[in-house]
Amino acid sequence: MRILISNDDGYLAPGISALAKALESVAEIAVVAPDSNRSGASSSLTLERPISVYKGNNGFLYTTGTPSDCVHIAVTGVLPWRPDLVVAGINHGQNMGEDTIYSGTVAAAMEGYLFDIPSIAFSQVNKGWAELESAALVARDVVLRVYEKLPKPFLLNVNIPNKPYAELKKICATRLGRRHESEAVIREKDPFDREIFWIGPSGPVRDAGEGTDFHAIRSGHVSVTPLQLDWTHTSVLGDLKKILE
Amino acid sequence: MRILISNDDGYLAPGISALAKALESVAEIAVVAPDSNRSGASSSLTLERPISVYKGNNGFLYTTGTPSDCVHIAVTGVLPWRPDLVVAGINHGQNMGEDTIYSGTVAAAMEGYLFDIPSIAFSQVNKGWAELESAALVARDVVLRVYEKLPKPFLLNVNIPNKPYAELKKICATRLGRRHESEAVIREKDPFDREIFWIGPSGPVRDAGEGTDFHAIRSGHVSVTPLQLDWTHTSVLGDLKKILE
Amino acid sequence: MRILISNDDGYLAPGISALAKALESVAEIAVVAPDSNRSGASSSLTLERPISVYKGNNGFLYTTGTPSDCVHIAVTGVLPWRPDLVVAGINHGQNMGEDTIYSGTVAAAMEGYLFDIPSIAFSQVNKGWAELESAALVARDVVLRVYEKLPKPFLLNVNIPNKPYAELKKICATRLGRRHESEAVIREKDPFDREIFWIGPSGPVRDAGEGTDFHAIRSGHVSVTPLQLDWTHTSVLGDLKKILE
Amino acid sequence: MRILISNDDGYLAPGISALAKALESVAEIAVVAPDSNRSGASSSLTLERPISVYKGNNGFLYTTGTPSDCVHIAVTGVLPWRPDLVVAGINHGQNMGEDTIYSGTVAAAMEGYLFDIPSIAFSQVNKGWAELESAALVARDVVLRVYEKLPKPFLLNVNIPNKPYAELKKICATRLGRRHESEAVIREKDPFDREIFWIGPSGPVRDAGEGTDFHAIRSGHVSVTPLQLDWTHTSVLGDLKKILE
Repeated sequence: MRILISNDDGYLAPGISALAKALESVAEIAVVAPDSNRSGASSSLTLERPISVYKGNNGFLYTTGTPSDCVHIAVTGVLPWRPDLVVAGINHGQNMGEDTIYSGTVAAAMEGYLFDIPSIAFSQVNKGWAELESAALVARDVVLRVYEKLPKPFLLNVNIPNKPYAELKKICATRLGRRHESEAVIREKDPFDREIFWIGPSGPVRDAGEGTDFHAIRSGHVSVTPLQLDWTHTSVLGDLKKILE
Repeated sequence: MRILISNDDGYLAPGISALAKALESVAEIAVVAPDSNRSGASSSLTLERPISVYKGNNGFLYTTGTPSDCVHIAVTGVLPWRPDLVVAGINHGQNMGEDTIYSGTVAAAMEGYLFDIPSIAFSQVNKGWAELESAALVARDVVLRVYEKLPKPFLLNVNIPNKPYAELKKICATRLGRRHESEAVIREKDPFDREIFWIGPSGPVRDAGEGTDFHAIRSGHVSVTPLQLDWTHTSVLGDLKKILE
Repeated sequence: MRILISNDDGYLAPGISALAKALESVAEIAVVAPDSNRSGASSSLTLERPISVYKGNNGFLYTTGTPSDCVHIAVTGVLPWRPDLVVAGINHGQNMGEDTIYSGTVAAAMEGYLFDIPSIAFSQVNKGWAELESAALVARDVVLRVYEKLPKPFLLNVNIPNKPYAELKKICATRLGRRHESEAVIREKDPFDREIFWIGPSGPVRDAGEGTDFHAIRSGHVSVTPLQLDWTHTSVLGDLKKILE
Repeated sequence: MRILISNDDGYLAPGISALAKALESVAEIAVVAPDSNRSGASSSLTLERPISVYKGNNGFLYTTGTPSDCVHIAVTGVLPWRPDLVVAGINHGQNMGEDTIYSGTVAAAMEGYLFDIPSIAFSQVNKGWAELESAALVARDVVLRVYEKLPKPFLLNVNIPNKPYAELKKICATRLGRRHESEAVIREKDPFDREIFWIGPSGPVRDAGEGTDFHAIRSGHVSVTPLQLDWTHTSVLGDLKKILE
């Protein structure tokens, strides 16, 4: 199996090293990741200028582009082979509920899936990289358990509690929960009395009911949510048709 | 009615001026848009640094942030009122099928929807701004026809052929079509013999069957697709649960 | 006479409009300026990626590059003619003493001079654009008075008090004064408790003796300082030679 | 002695590692450098947003700012001590003649000098890092030979041929030579038929007479040029005064 690895924290982040190390024992791997931190990049693509690719001291390829750029150019030209699997992460912090919309790590996996390649995004629930090796082992487990059995292509979003491997509860299939709306923007003055705005934190959880990613994580499980990319709101189509007739 | 207007082409783009002009006759409007072209921005958020807001010569507010940043900070702090509707566009070029995943204009509307505010993204099918006033009239029509009748909140993605208003066929409710995978990355040498990579064009259409946005546009209709933001792939959940047991 | 105009505040800044308006009565002009504010750009050049050039609604060309990029590409390829004079500004705030080292406006003029073209940088002493038309008249006066008489090429740095034209004292030739070292960096926490650093203000004036730009401005004069670009510290060469023998 | 080290090629560049290694045997060192390649940054300062500082895996501090930002914030707040010397480099490629105006490495040294701290910029003449250890030894030699003897503060610009240490000729004090004007901008079409512009190469040498940096390097010597930052063109002042009277 050949695996392409990317992330949004940059090619030097501890999470991508741990992921690469865990997977190189079970597959041929290649890493193509952003040159620096692109958290919050979502599926942004670089359309107005070219992207450069370099090789880092750690042997990973890094680019001047976004996470989606990395997977896009790796799959369509940079790598000598087409990956059997794209994995992204391990992300520095959770991607649950609507976090998935903003996450560059989820976007990197989405980009693989858009090329009909099975793809998985991995995130640690808490920041700080505690128990990172445990998370890397979980990532390898997930790859080994789902790759052969799940109809391809698939897109999975995995969140892993920062716990020792032995203390993790079993891996659960979940749906995305929902958050309340984000906190208000934070309005400050800079030292020169100019007004500046910081995007506030994510909202608190609104739907953490049974079956959600939030519920699984709160109970100490690893959460695996299958995602799709047809955003059509099918249940609204009927109403809309009537209104537009 | 109070409407927040944003886009991804920047606050000076012809599309946002036309949209603002068309809507100010039916609502109180405010424009908060990026300072420059952010095409392909997707739902990227600026998390590592603050955002500044300025007032342009045209009276619009513009920011150093992304389309999603603009709507986010407008709704949670910059505007004196909470909008009843968020509209984004009119985008320079179509957003159909998987284009929606990368579009900053669709993302601006998504951001409104994430705050439970009804939101609509408008795009002209062809670049070059031909028949822009016709598109602006259509945008006003869509707002007036759906706002009261469609259950709130809603998220709509509208594509408009570049045709005179009188020649446009009726507005159709559609689902997203699908494209084939994107063209390969374009590999070049820069003048200094360094290798550079350009993201290639979108793929040709794979699913333009009846009912899709591609089908409606090809037939000369205006296409309106309702979107949702729960990306859970429900039909895969059962399989995944069995595999993980 | 053909004049190329640029700045570092961006092609939409009031200062560059006023300058263009004042000069178009005495010369053929072309404006090529950055797309957005690049204050503090110094002589930075864009070497790792290409630059795009667009035409603004105001008829000015604007680029995705720095002030030096703008002049560089205007002179070597974008303009149909080679300028007889490059002017930069009118800058939003003074460029005196060591300010000249960081200023993108002074750098734009330097770039013209590096191509052996006479070049002048104009700045208003105070921010806020008060008495901008007065400053534009002064700029025109300086151009008309020095262009024919001063041996070419030359590089001049002009600072103009924000006063009505009738109240300005005469134009003085000056040398650069000196500031004390800059204020300390300003250390803050962002809202997420991450440490951030803001570059502090310029230092207070150390040498504002007679003959300096600071002295002229304090006395209500317009200050014109001739600059050169051979930075060799000739008076140190002898000592250094002895040490290295 | 305490030495602050910075550069413009980024904190991971081979040149800065070699320089740090060579100097840590003779002084206490601290490295504060940009997060990525900032070649051509000149003395640009980040004035509109804050700068972040991180610690790299190699123990060096790196920032989201420019070379001048790095030295500025290191000297005025980040370091626990005020450096006795600022060194920058070893740069990837020569900085001779007018190159000094654009170089971020020379700018980093200039920034130290603006705080009245003795400062030295080091560059290898050819790109590719050949004989980097030899250059690092030369850098240490220069520091040891001039620091005590040259009146402080001083600003030196050092260029080193890519040759084995034993083959280098002696270190010469030089003045800056001059180049002819830069090559024309390179005009291309991007793959989407949009016009793009690349800054062309530096011009060929115009003044490589005896005593210049170009002459020393061509003869196989290490070149050391003392620089100053008072850009007043004193010899023009008289003419200008007459014209303005």
